[in-house]
Amino acid sequence: MSDQRITPVPAHETPYYAVVFTSVRTEEDDDGYRHAAERLGELVKDIPGFLGEDSARTPGGLAISVAYFRDLAGIDRWRRDARHRAAKEYGREHWYERYSIHVARVEHSHGHARS
Amino acid sequence: MSDQRITPVPAHETPYYAVVFTSVRTEEDDDGYRHAAERLGELVKDIPGFLGEDSARTPGGLAISVAYFRDLAGIDRWRRDARHRAAKEYGREHWYERYSIHVARVEHSHGHARS
Repeated sequence: MSDQRITPVPAHETPYYAVVFTSVRTEEDDDGYRHAAERLGELVKDIPGFLGEDSARTPGGLAISVAYFRDLAGIDRWRRDARHRAAKEYGREHWYERYSIHVARVEHSHGHARS
Repeated sequence: MSDQRITPVPAHETPYYAVVFTSVRTEEDDDGYRHAAERLGELVKDIPGFLGEDSARTPGGLAISVAYFRDLAGIDRWRRDARHRAAKEYGREHWYERYSIHVARVEHSHGHARS
């Protein structure tokens, strides 16, 4: 990541879907978390209709990840992925103090870049 | 903020709306940005139907803010707010290298907290 240009997932042709995952981490097991997050970040790219993912984390504060998909079928396929499910189950016990998930249909979008 | 418990905006009764704002900052004018962001963060609370906002920023990386509203009317009112518009216009010139905005209708949501 560190040598790549940082670019948010751009606006796509609507409609598409966003899965917003907002979490507060425990202080447990950071190495295990990073390893799993990297692996899941690779696996999700194989889901048909996956459009990209943005993540940000304030040190000591909230983490927000937003994954974008062309349709609900892609989200459902990812939700049912056994490796993803296992990581979520483990994460509920070990990594996340609390989280919210919002699955939303994007109706308008646009982007801006300085020239 | 610092003495409050960090809690993501919870799942609300669907449907509601999320405005995802994902940005890469310039290195310019951080004090001015913080001041404006705090002021806007207060102003948006007066918008009818505003449900809350989550923000995260990776140092040197992406920032993601997600504001939640009961309906599109609230989003539209906030979009047309003169103080908000002025800040966005200034931000495009000074604060943001690039950004994406996704306005989305939340259709499913849930939350989790460790007991």
